[in-house]
Amino acid sequence: MKKKVTIGIDIGGTNSAFGFVDVLGKCIYESSIPTRAEQNADQLFERLFIEINKSFKKFDKEYELVGIGIGAPNGNYYKGTVEYPPNLNWGNVNVIDLVKKYSPLPCAITNDANAAAIGEMIFGAAKGMKNFIVITLGTGLGSGIVVNGEIVYGADGFAGEIGHTIVDPNGRECGCGRKGCLETYSSATGICRTVKELIETADTPSELRKIPFNNITAKDIADAANRGDKLALDAFDFTAKILGLKLADSIAYLSPEAIILFGGLAAAGDLIFVPTKRYMEEYMLNIFKNKVKLIPSGLPDGNSAVLGSSALIWNELKSENLFPAN
Amino acid sequence: MKKKVTIGIDIGGTNSAFGFVDVLGKCIYESSIPTRAEQNADQLFERLFIEINKSFKKFDKEYELVGIGIGAPNGNYYKGTVEYPPNLNWGNVNVIDLVKKYSPLPCAITNDANAAAIGEMIFGAAKGMKNFIVITLGTGLGSGIVVNGEIVYGADGFAGEIGHTIVDPNGRECGCGRKGCLETYSSATGICRTVKELIETADTPSELRKIPFNNITAKDIADAANRGDKLALDAFDFTAKILGLKLADSIAYLSPEAIILFGGLAAAGDLIFVPTKRYMEEYMLNIFKNKVKLIPSGLPDGNSAVLGSSALIWNELKSENLFPAN
Repeated sequence: MKKKVTIGIDIGGTNSAFGFVDVLGKCIYESSIPTRAEQNADQLFERLFIEINKSFKKFDKEYELVGIGIGAPNGNYYKGTVEYPPNLNWGNVNVIDLVKKYSPLPCAITNDANAAAIGEMIFGAAKGMKNFIVITLGTGLGSGIVVNGEIVYGADGFAGEIGHTIVDPNGRECGCGRKGCLETYSSATGICRTVKELIETADTPSELRKIPFNNITAKDIADAANRGDKLALDAFDFTAKILGLKLADSIAYLSPEAIILFGGLAAAGDLIFVPTKRYMEEYMLNIFKNKVKLIPSGLPDGNSAVLGSSALIWNELKSENLFPAN
Repeated sequence: MKKKVTIGIDIGGTNSAFGFVDVLGKCIYESSIPTRAEQNADQLFERLFIEINKSFKKFDKEYELVGIGIGAPNGNYYKGTVEYPPNLNWGNVNVIDLVKKYSPLPCAITNDANAAAIGEMIFGAAKGMKNFIVITLGTGLGSGIVVNGEIVYGADGFAGEIGHTIVDPNGRECGCGRKGCLETYSSATGICRTVKELIETADTPSELRKIPFNNITAKDIADAANRGDKLALDAFDFTAKILGLKLADSIAYLSPEAIILFGGLAAAGDLIFVPTKRYMEEYMLNIFKNKVKLIPSGLPDGNSAVLGSSALIWNELKSENLFPAN
């Protein structure tokens, strides 16, 4: 009997990755193609499935494809749609219907943060947990919430927007059109904005002053902080303070077993984990103190997005008892 | 065959109510006894069951008791405990074990806000809903969160503390020892604090200035507002603004179908509902706008707490298929 693998697809603004993942989370192959944001969704999936079919040829004697999981910006699990993704020229597309043109396999879609949460639950740091939150710290701040072992989709499939809870209604302008959203402070972009503010308003010396404003990246800030740069360390402290405050709120809502930090800014390690944990405990309601773990992703770096998407469809297949874990 | 009823018990700081409720939410009898906060839990339950047994005598030809549901401050569903309730001299008590001394019936406990949420789901305004939030606006602000048709208890049974999410980390002192919790602004106590601040800091004329500071109640403020008192209306607006802001956050977390406002301050009706709804929509992320209902409790006023506690145990009995709805 052939071994079963699912196709995990992660749609990004620049590149879209795919891979073949078995029921234990082993990724036997991964690759990616340029997304070409100016194209429509059909053009991307046509190109993707050409690549997928070509790539799978060298595995099809040993393996069998059993499902497709997709993580995409604004992916809606209930409706199977992607609605007006911010960085793609897609409009409102039913991706599940679209994929049927290219494959008869069962298919599910969700947004990237929810896919990350399912990935952690099935293959990663949240194995065996029933209540946890994944926070993705990238360009924005995404979140996937798991309660009683299930992703929280809410009434319309759009729950889990912790990045758009408000820190300060008169605060920084957010891409969503409002002001003061958490993601304007605590994300890779947010920490860059903080550094720019500190450069303008404080006279702390800093190696970051030598980099042109708009070229500073979260990686530059982490590198400077690791060399002891005071301004960079201040920026991490401020980012962590706001994140810790809002995670204390998350804990009041959901009393999770753990919060998992994921994505670009989480890669800064102790620089972000240590102060965030400290502020989270400081701002936390007494009954929760020292109960909630703040931990990094348990998914291998290179494959995490594809593993998350794959976990989404494995979770569906298992819950329908089509493919009990073997 | 006798008709089945459950015992709903609501433990309050001053009085503890009990009643007999059938599977359709009809309360055939309700009464209460003084809680006597200085007594321990055993003394209260001994007195309660004397009253319950006496009261049930006139029903026992027609009805059969099948379970006991208890709503109590700090009630923990998982552990069956009440842990250090703020206004009762109980310490840490396992209430489920304690009740066994007085009755062999199946028994479940939770806190009052969760009981209210289950009450709304089974008998009230949330019938048929799978994702909603109940906010109780009383002395404090309690909340019961329902996701996928289940109360969110979290990892330790203490989830749903929206009243202790932070509005302003340098804000009003809260009974929990921290500063700026939502309940210090948006609750019956919170609106009284707001009126006191407005009396001290603004020169708006107001009939409330005639009442001694510490005697002003939320009812006085609502009455004054209904007579057009500017300062009272300003206090409702401020209370609603902060509540609306934080409910917009709740929606970002959970995307509920509805938010139900319950309890003393919710009785102010349009005074609180209209501005809260306006601010909630104003602060809400675009994708959720005009989707989330803000509605009053659907439980009859006098019996709501007992109905909530009763619904808790009906929900258990049904989920165990012991007593399918008849």
